[in-house]
Amino acid sequence: MKDTFVGLGDMLISFSPPGYRRFLQADTMDVSYTGAEANVCFSLAMLGAKTRFVTRLPDNDIARCAVNKMKGFGIDTSAIAYGGDRMGVIYTEKGAAQRPSKVIYDRGGTSFARIKETDLDWDAVFADAAWFHFTGITAALSGNTRRLCLRACREAKARNITVSCDLNYRKKLWSEQTARQVMSQLMQYVDVVIGNEEDAERVLGIKAANSDVISGKLSNSDYEHTAGEIMGQFGVKKVAFTMRRSLSASDNEWSAMFFDQGKVCYSRTYTIHIVNRVGGGDAFSAGLIYSLMNGFEQQKAVEFAAAASCLKHSIELDVNLSTVNEVMTLVNGDGSGRVQR
Amino acid sequence: MKDTFVGLGDMLISFSPPGYRRFLQADTMDVSYTGAEANVCFSLAMLGAKTRFVTRLPDNDIARCAVNKMKGFGIDTSAIAYGGDRMGVIYTEKGAAQRPSKVIYDRGGTSFARIKETDLDWDAVFADAAWFHFTGITAALSGNTRRLCLRACREAKARNITVSCDLNYRKKLWSEQTARQVMSQLMQYVDVVIGNEEDAERVLGIKAANSDVISGKLSNSDYEHTAGEIMGQFGVKKVAFTMRRSLSASDNEWSAMFFDQGKVCYSRTYTIHIVNRVGGGDAFSAGLIYSLMNGFEQQKAVEFAAAASCLKHSIELDVNLSTVNEVMTLVNGDGSGRVQR
Amino acid sequence: MKDTFVGLGDMLISFSPPGYRRFLQADTMDVSYTGAEANVCFSLAMLGAKTRFVTRLPDNDIARCAVNKMKGFGIDTSAIAYGGDRMGVIYTEKGAAQRPSKVIYDRGGTSFARIKETDLDWDAVFADAAWFHFTGITAALSGNTRRLCLRACREAKARNITVSCDLNYRKKLWSEQTARQVMSQLMQYVDVVIGNEEDAERVLGIKAANSDVISGKLSNSDYEHTAGEIMGQFGVKKVAFTMRRSLSASDNEWSAMFFDQGKVCYSRTYTIHIVNRVGGGDAFSAGLIYSLMNGFEQQKAVEFAAAASCLKHSIELDVNLSTVNEVMTLVNGDGSGRVQR
Amino acid sequence: MKDTFVGLGDMLISFSPPGYRRFLQADTMDVSYTGAEANVCFSLAMLGAKTRFVTRLPDNDIARCAVNKMKGFGIDTSAIAYGGDRMGVIYTEKGAAQRPSKVIYDRGGTSFARIKETDLDWDAVFADAAWFHFTGITAALSGNTRRLCLRACREAKARNITVSCDLNYRKKLWSEQTARQVMSQLMQYVDVVIGNEEDAERVLGIKAANSDVISGKLSNSDYEHTAGEIMGQFGVKKVAFTMRRSLSASDNEWSAMFFDQGKVCYSRTYTIHIVNRVGGGDAFSAGLIYSLMNGFEQQKAVEFAAAASCLKHSIELDVNLSTVNEVMTLVNGDGSGRVQR
Amino acid sequence: MKDTFVGLGDMLISFSPPGYRRFLQADTMDVSYTGAEANVCFSLAMLGAKTRFVTRLPDNDIARCAVNKMKGFGIDTSAIAYGGDRMGVIYTEKGAAQRPSKVIYDRGGTSFARIKETDLDWDAVFADAAWFHFTGITAALSGNTRRLCLRACREAKARNITVSCDLNYRKKLWSEQTARQVMSQLMQYVDVVIGNEEDAERVLGIKAANSDVISGKLSNSDYEHTAGEIMGQFGVKKVAFTMRRSLSASDNEWSAMFFDQGKVCYSRTYTIHIVNRVGGGDAFSAGLIYSLMNGFEQQKAVEFAAAASCLKHSIELDVNLSTVNEVMTLVNGDGSGRVQR
Amino acid sequence: MKDTFVGLGDMLISFSPPGYRRFLQADTMDVSYTGAEANVCFSLAMLGAKTRFVTRLPDNDIARCAVNKMKGFGIDTSAIAYGGDRMGVIYTEKGAAQRPSKVIYDRGGTSFARIKETDLDWDAVFADAAWFHFTGITAALSGNTRRLCLRACREAKARNITVSCDLNYRKKLWSEQTARQVMSQLMQYVDVVIGNEEDAERVLGIKAANSDVISGKLSNSDYEHTAGEIMGQFGVKKVAFTMRRSLSASDNEWSAMFFDQGKVCYSRTYTIHIVNRVGGGDAFSAGLIYSLMNGFEQQKAVEFAAAASCLKHSIELDVNLSTVNEVMTLVNGDGSGRVQR
Repeated sequence: MKDTFVGLGDMLISFSPPGYRRFLQADTMDVSYTGAEANVCFSLAMLGAKTRFVTRLPDNDIARCAVNKMKGFGIDTSAIAYGGDRMGVIYTEKGAAQRPSKVIYDRGGTSFARIKETDLDWDAVFADAAWFHFTGITAALSGNTRRLCLRACREAKARNITVSCDLNYRKKLWSEQTARQVMSQLMQYVDVVIGNEEDAERVLGIKAANSDVISGKLSNSDYEHTAGEIMGQFGVKKVAFTMRRSLSASDNEWSAMFFDQGKVCYSRTYTIHIVNRVGGGDAFSAGLIYSLMNGFEQQKAVEFAAAASCLKHSIELDVNLSTVNEVMTLVNGDGSGRVQR
Repeated sequence: MKDTFVGLGDMLISFSPPGYRRFLQADTMDVSYTGAEANVCFSLAMLGAKTRFVTRLPDNDIARCAVNKMKGFGIDTSAIAYGGDRMGVIYTEKGAAQRPSKVIYDRGGTSFARIKETDLDWDAVFADAAWFHFTGITAALSGNTRRLCLRACREAKARNITVSCDLNYRKKLWSEQTARQVMSQLMQYVDVVIGNEEDAERVLGIKAANSDVISGKLSNSDYEHTAGEIMGQFGVKKVAFTMRRSLSASDNEWSAMFFDQGKVCYSRTYTIHIVNRVGGGDAFSAGLIYSLMNGFEQQKAVEFAAAASCLKHSIELDVNLSTVNEVMTLVNGDGSGRVQR
Repeated sequence: MKDTFVGLGDMLISFSPPGYRRFLQADTMDVSYTGAEANVCFSLAMLGAKTRFVTRLPDNDIARCAVNKMKGFGIDTSAIAYGGDRMGVIYTEKGAAQRPSKVIYDRGGTSFARIKETDLDWDAVFADAAWFHFTGITAALSGNTRRLCLRACREAKARNITVSCDLNYRKKLWSEQTARQVMSQLMQYVDVVIGNEEDAERVLGIKAANSDVISGKLSNSDYEHTAGEIMGQFGVKKVAFTMRRSLSASDNEWSAMFFDQGKVCYSRTYTIHIVNRVGGGDAFSAGLIYSLMNGFEQQKAVEFAAAASCLKHSIELDVNLSTVNEVMTLVNGDGSGRVQR
Repeated sequence: MKDTFVGLGDMLISFSPPGYRRFLQADTMDVSYTGAEANVCFSLAMLGAKTRFVTRLPDNDIARCAVNKMKGFGIDTSAIAYGGDRMGVIYTEKGAAQRPSKVIYDRGGTSFARIKETDLDWDAVFADAAWFHFTGITAALSGNTRRLCLRACREAKARNITVSCDLNYRKKLWSEQTARQVMSQLMQYVDVVIGNEEDAERVLGIKAANSDVISGKLSNSDYEHTAGEIMGQFGVKKVAFTMRRSLSASDNEWSAMFFDQGKVCYSRTYTIHIVNRVGGGDAFSAGLIYSLMNGFEQQKAVEFAAAASCLKHSIELDVNLSTVNEVMTLVNGDGSGRVQR
Repeated sequence: MKDTFVGLGDMLISFSPPGYRRFLQADTMDVSYTGAEANVCFSLAMLGAKTRFVTRLPDNDIARCAVNKMKGFGIDTSAIAYGGDRMGVIYTEKGAAQRPSKVIYDRGGTSFARIKETDLDWDAVFADAAWFHFTGITAALSGNTRRLCLRACREAKARNITVSCDLNYRKKLWSEQTARQVMSQLMQYVDVVIGNEEDAERVLGIKAANSDVISGKLSNSDYEHTAGEIMGQFGVKKVAFTMRRSLSASDNEWSAMFFDQGKVCYSRTYTIHIVNRVGGGDAFSAGLIYSLMNGFEQQKAVEFAAAASCLKHSIELDVNLSTVNEVMTLVNGDGSGRVQR
Repeated sequence: MKDTFVGLGDMLISFSPPGYRRFLQADTMDVSYTGAEANVCFSLAMLGAKTRFVTRLPDNDIARCAVNKMKGFGIDTSAIAYGGDRMGVIYTEKGAAQRPSKVIYDRGGTSFARIKETDLDWDAVFADAAWFHFTGITAALSGNTRRLCLRACREAKARNITVSCDLNYRKKLWSEQTARQVMSQLMQYVDVVIGNEEDAERVLGIKAANSDVISGKLSNSDYEHTAGEIMGQFGVKKVAFTMRRSLSASDNEWSAMFFDQGKVCYSRTYTIHIVNRVGGGDAFSAGLIYSLMNGFEQQKAVEFAAAASCLKHSIELDVNLSTVNEVMTLVNGDGSGRVQR
């Protein structure tokens, strides 16, 4: 049965100072494992979906810790390739108030950045697959991973698998120019494009009229225009945007827009006092993919995805540990945070 | 001299993940000791009252830890009975933003749930007692604890001791139907009833006209009507309600109403950025009981109780560690949180 | 292919004060998940075996944490039954020097203690199974679990599966008399009996001539005599004993004996400076079962099992996280603890 | 080259319960090193200034820890005197919501409080110095430190060094009367006076018309009047005030005013969700001094100082770990707290 | 009934780096409350004795934490005087292997060091008292505490209370010369003298023939000679010595000698792998006093005291948290450290 | 004045699970900064020497943390070059008993591995330098670092600076063959060679007659023979060996040999109960270099170096935080670990 979600991307070890400590104040760090596509996998597994995560990892104990975590969520890790020298490392300092979160990447020369197309058994990668998801980060890492994305998209389409892509622009990984060139080529295989206010402009070169990326004050018509352009230029059928308004690192407004074949739906807007915003976009992708894999109608899909990612902001580390019940409670209007006892 | 407060109820060991971690993220947990009546005792002891806590505990080191904590606050633990197999365990995951706190009870078959009336020396329980307090949780635990509540109320009234009861409805412990039947019988002994917006409806079956329990948007007249019903039906002289408006798990509005023989007083309303809301109701009970044991007039009593419970929301774990000075500073209008140095 | 190990038993949440703190000194506790058969499963999974763990758990987040940990090690958890009210809780205070470790059980009324034979799908339990393992602890918990053991043994034998049993006498769970009666009945189904110096005497009533259980000073001939008795009385083919000499809670001597159809082999004796001795017996069982499932000859089998359990003493918490390579390095004589870099 | 900032004051070891725990809940405490002038030094060093910190410390390992921390920031510690018995100790309980932070001083009889003018080598203290900064706390500690302040001011003026003073009134250290007498004498040497809404009134006896110190609701004209008085009475050329409006311990409004030779400039007002407000004033001093040492014009200076101290509120412990880049990003309008990646 | 133990001495807040970290490596420290006589009180309370602790403390939250801890053990704290400025602070770095533990005292000018005889209500101090205990540390702190010791001894003797004194020489607090002069005067009131190999020589000036204080290699006859001298010179009836042989900071041999009116008894010798040796002497004092208050015969008394203090070495922080059962198990020969389950 | 020690090498961020946890059990890790030459610098700075550390680091906050730590010890970091992408990462799992410590290197493509000779200002590197130290690890990292070693040695010799080299063979970094070829070439510049039992054989190809590297059982004559060969083949004047006998990861015997121009001296042998053995060799190098820079005679030099490194084994993390006083106390015979108070 074709019922499995497949995520393909990097898996990093993530170190972060406890609480709101800055790097300079940290003699211990919290350890977790992260990666845009991996986080989507974790989220979907929490929601009860069948999931597979594919990457390339070195053959050492740190990588084993990461794989064990995934297995613990019931994610199929059997298609992971082993080899190379190192996992990527990411250092995250959590922001608060007017101080933004800070991220230090150490992801050069990793086992994944050096992956070759032939390292993977593509039949194993896509066995029983109904959905394939990747992000712009994977395309950004290296020439090898760019080729990998292309190959994966082709393998997926050849198997009639739905393909989604979170644009996920990271300016520390590549220039806008390279991003545009690479991503434009990949778009032809993509059925569902996911992004935020920055991505469309920086990755696809589609600029909204009155954008103010820093404050996130875009009008709905800006978003609709941008989505229309994406669909027109690349033949994409579905486009979803998260819309963040950053009041500060501690307080955000958060909502989403979902464009499906000419029709647009908006989710409710959440005012969120943030515990940790990292992974909010991945949680949205997971929520949307879950909705579409389960045939939710368009409005319910965008509400489910927005609520899932809203809840992520209340959760430490990068993964959305919310269940379908928890998301649906919020979709149905209870954001009161009352104790259940 | 009759000057001692007596609380009778369960004492549990409480485990909670550090910070805002979810259960799935916790490799260590914070340990504390809790219980509705125990928390009232702790609070009153912090306020300087003479207190006694009565329960039944197993004879093991974990129970000794709990008793030592109480002794540390000067609470008289000499009437506690020992026997049975286990203390109850409670797991609490602290909520934030739109994610509610989550509580897992493991309190079946505990030493306290299996207590027999004859396990206690009632003269020792009520020696020098001026006030007796219990909650609906104790009545909910088991047939044994229901009989215990009845016996305790009768013993208290026979000694002319004031009796207060926090309705404290817990849907995980009993049905509304059983709650109503049991609590209605106990009401005849109760002088002061304490509750919140859910309790009156679910426990006593008295429904406000336009209640919306989830958001907590009740009108004052709803509360007044409900209080009137309680006083009419059960001959209770005093009724106090806490009024919570949950904006999210992180932000609440909080105030209180106190009905005393036909006259109603409202406290100021506090807008609270929450550290930990668990135990807010117990802190209110303690504040109100302290006020009444010390002869505060009605308005001062409700302000004191509301301020005490407001401060609880700024404190980790379940116990209100506020002193009379700290509460009075807030009653007198300084909620500015300025550093004292 | 019949290649799967099946463990059946309880799964508890385990709380222990950090480092060498006593219960009275603990405001945080380390959290882990444990159980005799579960620990054997974890160990075997670390050694690379195919494993399945079967138990009954409540349907709550704490149980989910435990299941996720098992899945993380690749253990098949699909045959676990859900229902009932609670997981067992175990509190462990780690000893040192002349102060012994201390264990508080809170395992009454658990989902597992109340398991019914019909809660499990026996075909799923034993699908592809080559080996079934249980311990005296499971037999000790309740009438329900005793019946479960009997049923499981019969189901296993009907499928021609090898059955092993670690006697694992726990005086806090049952009397010697009950233990003897129950375990004697179960022995007829057991192919491999595992125990230590106390178990044979207390569980099977077979007393060595000059035993001194406290110091562990038994002669080899005592062990051989006892093993012979077990084989004679119950028709067991293989008997293995761990031999611990407790110099203090910090320093032990440790070795093992393995009797197989008339021939006895002894392992090397290890002098161990202990990090945590809990789970040493479970690590031995896992090592022995691994050896026998992989056809190791008798001397190698006892050396492998002894080395595996020796390494467990250097590891925190209850599970032996050693790989085959690590065990074989010690079997081959390198106990020098030199850094590998 | 005269380019070095010199701070002279106390250095304390600071203990604080983790997170929002109260003292009664703390079995571990976070350790840091603090002091008003020391914090200014740390901040300036983070901003890239050449700095020297001067104090007197006992010759023990705790003091060495403090000095090592300073050296780690590149602060010149070579003019520190050693002798006496003890460092001061400060215990800080972090407030939240309506509960204020609480500070317990244990700073009597310290090595610094007993410092003699002759303990310092004044040429070493002021080698290459362009700026000298002290606070009212140093003047408050003891007769010895009062004489030290006087001597230091005279030595500085003799070397034509700019002198700044943060009034920093601490009611636990001295009475308003003594403060006025001592500080009035010192003012003659001071070029730049820094303070907040309480200080001018309590230290210098200059009362605004409609002050409400607790809520911090002063009008701009009140501040301007007060600044004018200070400049008139003491011949001070520059006066800067931080203006805090405490909504609660968790939420403050924060801005600043800077009066320079007849002209007043106001900074933007920040609404801050607070991580830790202790050290906000020191961060402001550092920001202002940095601005003036680098020749920023008046409006930029007050914006830089206000933004620096705004960021401090998002940082744990007492020191502002912000870089010039981070401050300038906020000055330039990005307080959105967006992740940089 | 005269059945209460009274300890009089200092109470300090104690900070120690976690595990084996040195001061330079500690960003958090463990917090506890300690003091020689306080530790004896804690130990006796754990053993079930009625105890009272008397000291003078400042009126602040840190002192309240200390008092709460004592109350938690059931120690009567009602005779404690309040006043003065500060509690003493002690920093302890735990040694290991060849690296000794390191202690930094910050106990000048404390509330206790400045206690006046008239601060205490002597009738309250000695109500129901059977035993009074103090140590050389109290005599060493200040002139005030010396006078306090003298007064306390006289008050005790006037009430016919047994007086014990642990010589407890601390070279960081006073010189041998002063110690001798002060302690010699106090000896006339003392019934039971407790000490170790250093104390007799340094405090009382009684030198064993072949002492080697560092390695602790004294012969029994040296100890006996010294004890005889003490009894002869000061008319003391009972003398007890702990005998430590320090192999390293991690491994010690430990035993005790007890001289009672001409007869000497030796305890068994324990070889101890140390968790924390601080407080070993206090645990011995408590064990001996418990033995004598309960009428143990001489050999049992010394064995009980030695076993109690042996167990202390396995316990973190300064207090012996052992029960009578645990001590008696070791006295009766089980030092095997086997798990109890 | 030529009085400065210069170390040149890599600086890594080091993560290690707390206590004895394995990688699989670690949700937090302790953070520190390490590197063979850096550790020698830290140790020498603790001993009071003037030190400079030279490396190449990326321009990010993690590197700044490392540099700040060094500055905190007074190490001159002004000659460090900045550039490149990443610091190396090292993961260390601390062993115990029969389980060895485990190290995972992630040091490919680091800023240091890609250093070019021209990145350094050699006059700044060697300003005031009396001693230059490097290790085989630096030579092993990359072709770039090999060239760097050669250049550094030549620059040092041209300035008449003493050169020492710790052979420090790491089999995870290079083969024996490459090591031999590279190190043989560098030996011509080296005045003092430091190594252990493995190094001479693996790096220089000089094999002792009866070596047993794993257990470390080499005879003195083996060491003397090996030293002689080194001196003969490479014209080295001084050779020092540490001699470790690994009883287990918890217990080692430790001593040293120092060959100087035909004369050999042995240090005392220490039996050490280990806290953390990593960095023991670096501590030895620092002790020896300190001795030689201060003109200690040969026997004192080897005793000082051996005692320093013995103390390191009692200290957490990789750096020897011992002072000259502490080392001399052990040299003078007090390894008793008695508390100093």
